[in-house]
Amino acid sequence: MKKTMRAVLATALLILPLAFTNQAGATDVQQQAQALFKIIPLSPPVIAGNATTPEKVELGKMLYFEPRLSKSALISCNTCHNVGMGGADYQQTSTGHGWKKGPRNAPTVLNSVFNLAQFWDGRAKDLAEQAKGPVQAGVEMNSTPERVVATLKSMPEYVALFEKAFPGEKDPVTFDNMAKAIEVFEATLITPDSRFDHYLKGDAKALNQEETEGLSLFIANGCVECHGGINMGGDEYYELGVVKRPSDEIMAGDKGRYTVTQNVGDQFKFKSPSLRNIELTPPYFHSGVVWDLKEAVAVMNISQLGANLTDSDIDKIVVFLKTTTGKQPQVTYPILPAPTAATPKPALD
Amino acid sequence: MKKTMRAVLATALLILPLAFTNQAGATDVQQQAQALFKIIPLSPPVIAGNATTPEKVELGKMLYFEPRLSKSALISCNTCHNVGMGGADYQQTSTGHGWKKGPRNAPTVLNSVFNLAQFWDGRAKDLAEQAKGPVQAGVEMNSTPERVVATLKSMPEYVALFEKAFPGEKDPVTFDNMAKAIEVFEATLITPDSRFDHYLKGDAKALNQEETEGLSLFIANGCVECHGGINMGGDEYYELGVVKRPSDEIMAGDKGRYTVTQNVGDQFKFKSPSLRNIELTPPYFHSGVVWDLKEAVAVMNISQLGANLTDSDIDKIVVFLKTTTGKQPQVTYPILPAPTAATPKPALD
Repeated sequence: MKKTMRAVLATALLILPLAFTNQAGATDVQQQAQALFKIIPLSPPVIAGNATTPEKVELGKMLYFEPRLSKSALISCNTCHNVGMGGADYQQTSTGHGWKKGPRNAPTVLNSVFNLAQFWDGRAKDLAEQAKGPVQAGVEMNSTPERVVATLKSMPEYVALFEKAFPGEKDPVTFDNMAKAIEVFEATLITPDSRFDHYLKGDAKALNQEETEGLSLFIANGCVECHGGINMGGDEYYELGVVKRPSDEIMAGDKGRYTVTQNVGDQFKFKSPSLRNIELTPPYFHSGVVWDLKEAVAVMNISQLGANLTDSDIDKIVVFLKTTTGKQPQVTYPILPAPTAATPKPALD
Repeated sequence: MKKTMRAVLATALLILPLAFTNQAGATDVQQQAQALFKIIPLSPPVIAGNATTPEKVELGKMLYFEPRLSKSALISCNTCHNVGMGGADYQQTSTGHGWKKGPRNAPTVLNSVFNLAQFWDGRAKDLAEQAKGPVQAGVEMNSTPERVVATLKSMPEYVALFEKAFPGEKDPVTFDNMAKAIEVFEATLITPDSRFDHYLKGDAKALNQEETEGLSLFIANGCVECHGGINMGGDEYYELGVVKRPSDEIMAGDKGRYTVTQNVGDQFKFKSPSLRNIELTPPYFHSGVVWDLKEAVAVMNISQLGANLTDSDIDKIVVFLKTTTGKQPQVTYPILPAPTAATPKPALD
């Protein structure tokens, strides 16, 4: 539904890109933007079926930073979704257990609570379901639910924290509850207060002339079609290369959502990545082969828009995108419980 | 000098261990302890030749958590010296670049500023010299000073932070200054306020009866000989197995300080590890093959003391050691600068 409105607006604007970028004043662009994007709130959203409590958030934070959830006891959620590095890593595709490379670039955890689903192909319906994936993936943390539960139950401090986070449950230390706690912590990892959000709130001066022109181009050329809404992406699946397929290196033989649905129509479709804080998280695309943001926009110009953006236009879009960098999460590093004799030993194999 | 006093006291106590443990009241033990140990201060110590400023500490913290100091862009100081895990990792010996295992167990960073030198064999005279080692070690971060400087200079935010941390220097972004900044941050990672320190400050009730008995045994049987002072270790080199060599598995063919000095008299000598917060950092010994603290004390009983500690005595020493766990550092996770096109790409080979 919300897509329809955006599509209509963006298409209308596509018809007259020159008129728009030449004649529209800041206020007009701002009004268009206010209709196409949403502001990141100052407080985390409520998660249906997983109430947020301070105890659950604190436990989730500990688990997010807990390397003993991995078989090697070396890799935590934060390894690939580093809260100090835009919620991602600086890797083409993530490196995990056994120094193995995963198949796709790590998406940012920041603002991921706003996505319609998780992973590039949307195979996890929410962050709790997502959290269970990497813990078990052989090329990531390579653990098992049984090993995780044994690890957590081996430390009395964790048992007490699970009891507080999931009050009234008979057996609160479960793999599912681990995931639910991580989900509520991850929901706190939002980045409000970007200059772009101040602009959306009404402060036309929050963006300078070049940035505003970049925004105009972003809207007028249809970038906003897949990268609008609150997260500037993350709310639908789109075919990568709808105008012209990007290079084999970028595609990396990945059929995207088709691997989940087996629907031929879903071939090469990916959840559009959020463009918020995008300057912080190179490299780009599911394959992570493009390290430069300008190059990524240039690829989109040809493959996705079939537009004729000039070099200067692309520069303007890039400077606009940098205005989406918000206030990064302030996280106090958690003090993790002391292991006991019952805590599983790390295994590197 | 300070050693002599301790040695005399400890030796005197060794002569009459039974008399001491049976007859001495809490106050006597406390007085002995006050002569043999020192309290961890509430504030970091001053480092000669490396003035502490808030700017340098903040930069040092960023560098401590900066995985891009490693060739893979995956490994930071905090990977093996995790501030949430007692300042160490939960590994037999650390795992680094290429999933390779290092030769020795990672010592804790906590309170390491109080050690006479760094590494098990004391081959680095201070924390700044130490910091340069793992960054370059092939089995750890596998980088080079040139690569580190290129990485840091590629990000304008780091250049500005180095200028602030090292004011007046013509070319502040250097490998040496990286190490100096890390050193002042690491000096903040101290753990005051343990129950044992409250006991040393005069509160006899800070330890219970069993813990006090453990302390008496620790003193009377000579543990304090190598594990006294402020850090309960870290202030001298001692032969491991002076009474009876531990198992080959524990020794792991490691000749300790001999590898640094090539003096035959230094064979099998190691800097005595700090016992503060020891419950948080299994496994134990330079080889990391002993996972249980009680077993570690039992090995020392036979190999180092030649004492006849009973199972119950060893239990008491273990409960005493747990009273040395202090207030763990509160660290706000640093937000690291966005990379630029000039930032070296990670390399996993």
